[in-house]
Amino acid sequence: MIKRLLLTGTAALLLMGAAPITQQGSATQASPQEVLDAAPASAWTDVQSDDLVIMTLADGSKVSYQLASAFAPVHVANIRQLVRSGYFDGASIIRVQDAYVVQWGRADDDKTEAKGINATPPAEYEFAAPGAFKALPYRDAYAEKVGHIKSWPVASDGKTNWLIHCYGMIGVARDVAPDTGSGTQLYTVIGHAPRHLDRNLAVVGRVVGGMEFLTNRPRGTEELGFYKDDSQRIRIVSTKMASDLPMAERPAYQVMDSDSQSFSAWVKARANRSGAFFVRSAGAVDICNAPAPIRLKPM
Amino acid sequence: MIKRLLLTGTAALLLMGAAPITQQGSATQASPQEVLDAAPASAWTDVQSDDLVIMTLADGSKVSYQLASAFAPVHVANIRQLVRSGYFDGASIIRVQDAYVVQWGRADDDKTEAKGINATPPAEYEFAAPGAFKALPYRDAYAEKVGHIKSWPVASDGKTNWLIHCYGMIGVARDVAPDTGSGTQLYTVIGHAPRHLDRNLAVVGRVVGGMEFLTNRPRGTEELGFYKDDSQRIRIVSTKMASDLPMAERPAYQVMDSDSQSFSAWVKARANRSGAFFVRSAGAVDICNAPAPIRLKPM
Repeated sequence: MIKRLLLTGTAALLLMGAAPITQQGSATQASPQEVLDAAPASAWTDVQSDDLVIMTLADGSKVSYQLASAFAPVHVANIRQLVRSGYFDGASIIRVQDAYVVQWGRADDDKTEAKGINATPPAEYEFAAPGAFKALPYRDAYAEKVGHIKSWPVASDGKTNWLIHCYGMIGVARDVAPDTGSGTQLYTVIGHAPRHLDRNLAVVGRVVGGMEFLTNRPRGTEELGFYKDDSQRIRIVSTKMASDLPMAERPAYQVMDSDSQSFSAWVKARANRSGAFFVRSAGAVDICNAPAPIRLKPM
Repeated sequence: MIKRLLLTGTAALLLMGAAPITQQGSATQASPQEVLDAAPASAWTDVQSDDLVIMTLADGSKVSYQLASAFAPVHVANIRQLVRSGYFDGASIIRVQDAYVVQWGRADDDKTEAKGINATPPAEYEFAAPGAFKALPYRDAYAEKVGHIKSWPVASDGKTNWLIHCYGMIGVARDVAPDTGSGTQLYTVIGHAPRHLDRNLAVVGRVVGGMEFLTNRPRGTEELGFYKDDSQRIRIVSTKMASDLPMAERPAYQVMDSDSQSFSAWVKARANRSGAFFVRSAGAVDICNAPAPIRLKPM
């Protein structure tokens, strides 16, 4: 049982599950989990119900995702319209490529019309900061500066900013450059952050619940993880905006405010792991290993 | 179909599948796939059969992994002994934690004895370089220098070196520090590289085939992704050293030699994507987005 308990330790620190608190850990510095547990309610921001999408799959599992309305407003408006018009109801997970992406929408041979959207939105790959930039004090291979704006992972070259393709982030599949996608096919990252996609596709959201019901699917056997035929595709039975559900049925997600003191302490704790398990602390953390903590609002 | 083809492009570049070659791509610079296709046989190194383990799961799927014998020889000797003594035959996948690790071996309540191993191996978390260090010319959040030694991802602080917890790398589960694990429970990374584990656990290998048969499993419902009970665990029916199989049955994997010109060209192409799909090239690549290409030896 010891081995299980102690492996529990490291994993909990990464995924924000319950971490066993050790004498040594308490004696040195707070663990990321201890920081979360001590954070005041004011450090958590509610995910707005009009930015929250609940997708129900054929096996009854539910995947919830938050739209990045402050960063890609035209694409987000398209996605809200597609959801409300029922475009995704009866669509499918059409592609699962290991270490890369899960993609859903209408397969290319499905001629369902997307009604009422902007078919050729602006790229929205880069933007002027819509809020304070909370930079990480660590190096990044791809950008001069990385950090968070309104609790979203952002990179910057000092002139422009862009959302980062971290695990669980959602982007809009598109045709050949320079046109962007309309939002009829979406993908989420299921491997090491494919940062080469940054600024090449519109990043429009992130999975906030049920990610494991996208990642546990059989990988597609066709080129690039597309499923061979419709019988292999996992059907999406319904997709709803949380704001269109009765109050009692709306999941209440909260994201830690990246401008809060608690968030700064949490990032520091992620970069400097302590406790009995750790022989060495890294002293740094990669932007995609510091995703803003997300939780269901305590009752 | 266009959307499928063009998304194919980006994914192929990441995972080394077949990439559609565009006029523009050809006109500018070789894509990573073009570099691989053009690489001479001399750029590829055979995975030694005594470093290659083939694990067969209850559903008939096979996962192959390469042992890092040049970096963690005592742990690797333990793993070979555990494989040859049948320790893993009838063991299970005991833990699948989304975005983190898949772990296999004997569950903690299984008292099967591990015979003939070094029960307390040295940590082997760091080492003097056993070969030339081919550094990446890009920044890294965690280390002064990252690159490859003998086609393995390595970080260095100028004094010591260590293997990096990239996607698909295999480590040895252990109890509380400072003792290391014996090799009776192994894990592989299935999310964004958890670099905070570097130098805290012994990294002993990497998955070279069948990774998708580990990642497509239901996530465990207990704390940290452990399965609740044995009925949920995926059984390992057999684990064999390739060197103990008849020649005809040995999978012939090859890894691109990180000291080859082809590898340097491939890393450059990964950092500077071209072709019709890309609006912008990142101009850099993270160490865990530049894993040495692996293939089955052409017949």
